[in-house]
Amino acid sequence: MSLDSIYKPVKEELTLIEESLASIARTGFVWLTEILQYTLKGGGKRIRPALVLLAGKFHKYDMTYLLPMGVAVELMHTATLVHDDAIDKSDTRRGRATIYKMLGEEKAVLLGDFLFARAGEAVSDTQNVGVIKLFSQTLERITSGELNQALNAYNLEQTMENYLNRISGKTASLFSLSTTSGAILSWAPAEVVNSLREYGHDLGIAFQIADDTLDFAGTEEELGKPVGSDLAQGTLTLPAMLSLKLYPEDNPVRKLFSNPGMPASEKQSHIKRAIELVLNSSIIEQCYATATEYSVMAGDRVRGLPDNASRRALFELAEYVVSRRK
Amino acid sequence: MSLDSIYKPVKEELTLIEESLASIARTGFVWLTEILQYTLKGGGKRIRPALVLLAGKFHKYDMTYLLPMGVAVELMHTATLVHDDAIDKSDTRRGRATIYKMLGEEKAVLLGDFLFARAGEAVSDTQNVGVIKLFSQTLERITSGELNQALNAYNLEQTMENYLNRISGKTASLFSLSTTSGAILSWAPAEVVNSLREYGHDLGIAFQIADDTLDFAGTEEELGKPVGSDLAQGTLTLPAMLSLKLYPEDNPVRKLFSNPGMPASEKQSHIKRAIELVLNSSIIEQCYATATEYSVMAGDRVRGLPDNASRRALFELAEYVVSRRK
Repeated sequence: MSLDSIYKPVKEELTLIEESLASIARTGFVWLTEILQYTLKGGGKRIRPALVLLAGKFHKYDMTYLLPMGVAVELMHTATLVHDDAIDKSDTRRGRATIYKMLGEEKAVLLGDFLFARAGEAVSDTQNVGVIKLFSQTLERITSGELNQALNAYNLEQTMENYLNRISGKTASLFSLSTTSGAILSWAPAEVVNSLREYGHDLGIAFQIADDTLDFAGTEEELGKPVGSDLAQGTLTLPAMLSLKLYPEDNPVRKLFSNPGMPASEKQSHIKRAIELVLNSSIIEQCYATATEYSVMAGDRVRGLPDNASRRALFELAEYVVSRRK
Repeated sequence: MSLDSIYKPVKEELTLIEESLASIARTGFVWLTEILQYTLKGGGKRIRPALVLLAGKFHKYDMTYLLPMGVAVELMHTATLVHDDAIDKSDTRRGRATIYKMLGEEKAVLLGDFLFARAGEAVSDTQNVGVIKLFSQTLERITSGELNQALNAYNLEQTMENYLNRISGKTASLFSLSTTSGAILSWAPAEVVNSLREYGHDLGIAFQIADDTLDFAGTEEELGKPVGSDLAQGTLTLPAMLSLKLYPEDNPVRKLFSNPGMPASEKQSHIKRAIELVLNSSIIEQCYATATEYSVMAGDRVRGLPDNASRRALFELAEYVVSRRK
């Protein structure tokens, strides 16, 4: 199923989000306008704004508040990507040059800061202080999750709990903010807000496990960036963890992580071997099984909500995130 | 006059701000706690929170709202410093190692992001959506001012207007947010809010011109960082601009800016000569004359406010920012 068809219940509203993002790009500062246009038209999936809108469809659907919220989560997401690319010195994302590659580290950091600020302005337009606070708390979770990841780079001693905690901060927290805020801003009662919060969290975990798996099982063309980039950054994800468990001896991941300063060519050959090892095993299957558990849980979370087009879209989205190839 | 004595009308409240910053540093993540403690106890002047508190003393003074606001402006300021040091690759600030120097670029960028988020959470505790929006808009001004500065690095063709615009974004906007929010959160009438906004702006300009002048006229010990760091970054400030005007021929600033990639030793000798040229001229005097104009204007802005201890402190602060040596 394609995202376009899943998004059908909020198709028009997503167009309004695109327009709002385009108008945010138009600043009085020509150089900044061009860069923002490039950054905000990056061919992202717009899953987070779609979640805000879909979650807003169970009670009083009001675009006055849902529109700025959808814009805010997309801007926050974009800001974190711009910073991640600068930090990881990544040259490509979604098949295009990153801001880091085009403009260097300094401007990428500042542009990310600008986008955080702009996201903050957008969320203030929801007029809801509780949602505004949740927004900042989510950014705290994301950045402390990323600090945790940075601290644990090249660390082989990580448990499944560590991993889930990390991806919960890094990804699920923003998915969960999206659905929670959509529910709150449509005056949904507490139990609906809770169901949608849990849906967002579980969907985010499923999404990120699939993402981490595609970093091994995808192609560079599908991913829009090199395969194995997590390993190249020293980030231990589920497929690598499972490979260490299955093949404790002579494991290329162990070799790679034991010496982060090794020459690039050696690094590449370990990464290549690690990917082969994973692909020639049942690991990909196991990863998808885990992702699917979360995807099924996500669906269960919203089973009690009214049966409408939005609920169907949430079910479909849960299936989509574990079947997508990019 | 010392800051301690200027701050007397809000001495106790500033202690509450320190306590709040200390409690923000205590997270559940031990490593982060240590880093935050180091970062937030950096011996800063706390001018911005003091401005929030002093500006709040003209109507209904209520720490429920002024305390989180004071904390928020200090956190935002700290976040921008952490990012600036990472971007500029600065090793020392206030006589101590920077986060960049201690932990590297990646963690410095993420820590700055965490501090922005924490600042956003603090400002949400003011419960005032207008102030929250102003807060984000100020961060937009700061970062687009810094992007502008980055774009104009090593550019000799800058006018006084460009310069004022730059420091207005970079520094005066946050001073102005501090006084404006203090006024709004104490339910001051519009004309009082306006006077305090203008005071903050003019004070910020005076402060930054003095800062830029001290980068030539101060000592490394006073500054807590090397002298001439603006020149080393390719940032054209008022003293350098005046030197180009006074000595259009054979000017070391011109030489330095014409070839940003020159060897470090050559760079250092141009910087040394540029500082000597400035010190052996009337430039420092001229810069202080300009800073003093803004400082006097700042004082004039609040002359119509009730004559209380806070107004006296604002006058004293305006004198202080152009007489300080660090």
